Amino acid sequence: MSENASSAPQSRGPADHNVREQIVEAAEEHFSHYGYEKTTVSDLAKSIGFSKAYIYKFFDSKQAIGEAICAKTLSAIIVAVEEAVANAPTATEKFRRMFKSLVSTGVSLFFNDRKLYDIAAHSAGEGWPSARAYAQRIEQILMEVIREGRESGEFERKTPLDETVNAIFLVIQPYVNPLLLQYNLDLAEEAPVQLSNLVLRSLAP
Amino acid sequence: MSENASSAPQSRGPADHNVREQIVEAAEEHFSHYGYEKTTVSDLAKSIGFSKAYIYKFFDSKQAIGEAICAKTLSAIIVAVEEAVANAPTATEKFRRMFKSLVSTGVSLFFNDRKLYDIAAHSAGEGWPSARAYAQRIEQILMEVIREGRESGEFERKTPLDETVNAIFLVIQPYVNPLLLQYNLDLAEEAPVQLSNLVLRSLAP
Repeated sequence: MSENASSAPQSRGPADHNVREQIVEAAEEHFSHYGYEKTTVSDLAKSIGFSKAYIYKFFDSKQAIGEAICAKTLSAIIVAVEEAVANAPTATEKFRRMFKSLVSTGVSLFFNDRKLYDIAAHSAGEGWPSARAYAQRIEQILMEVIREGRESGEFERKTPLDETVNAIFLVIQPYVNPLLLQYNLDLAEEAPVQLSNLVLRSLAP
Repeated sequence: MSENASSAPQSRGPADHNVREQIVEAAEEHFSHYGYEKTTVSDLAKSIGFSKAYIYKFFDSKQAIGEAICAKTLSAIIVAVEEAVANAPTATEKFRRMFKSLVSTGVSLFFNDRKLYDIAAHSAGEGWPSARAYAQRIEQILMEVIREGRESGEFERKTPLDETVNAIFLVIQPYVNPLLLQYNLDLAEEAPVQLSNLVLRSLAP
């Protein structure tokens, strides 16, 4: 899934990884100053010093560039979550840390770079592949944690695994989805703790 | 709380209930055609056939009129939830029906009158008294249901009552808050069932 999330779905032309990277980085900086909505590919080309035609060799559209930035940003959250989970000793602790790191990384992204956050929120609102891949990867990590907890005897096994995972995903969704997270910033400290406790009570064997 | 939700917080002048009602009804119709954001008190006065000065005798501002409409709309949800809860035989069933009616009434409001829904969402975003009173009333109903379930032995009693209620309120909040509900419409069928099951598992004694 990480692979999926970081590959550009609409790339074309020569597979020159460096040029692509260069365009994405320049676009990221440009968007973070001027916003995603207001920038055109022409503006971008001018500011990077490439021709518009050259940029179109690498990206189909502004959205494709936005997608690449979005995928990069969302991948950073995934990496933080994966690290948090890998370092936890038990499934219970994995779940707590997963939820906590998800919210704290998302929020710090939000506070540090509101304009980039807007791209992610836009992406989630429009159902871009990067946002969908991100949500799927989070759900997959969640499923691994629940499965581990069931195997170790920490979590109950009566409820079908899919049902448990779906329901917990609905609980964390307002904090996973960048579009919703922006309305939940004042809950960023409290919600992961309280909701983790509730979810863990629901998982008790 | 219902009383609170339906009283206009910024009313002034003669306590002529009928004229207030008349203004609120006319404004409701006007907003539902032209939208809340785009309408001024002058537009409203013209369309009702009252002078602007006369309207200001009853309401401080456009927001005060919006507040009154919002309070009325949110009260309708409260009434639906209260009825759903009153008719349920057990605390478990009360919780299920509460959540279900909350979502279905909110969603039908959304589909029937998007413009009025926008006032409610605006109100929730700005933290208007009507929206706050609504959320408080929902939390209060929730607390009564949990307390009843603890007394009847349906629900566990180890977790402090406040903690349980707060956490469950966080679970239902994306469906209580009109601002968040608009992003969760595609989950309106599935979420109340799945989340009710999860919450009820967490409440098991």
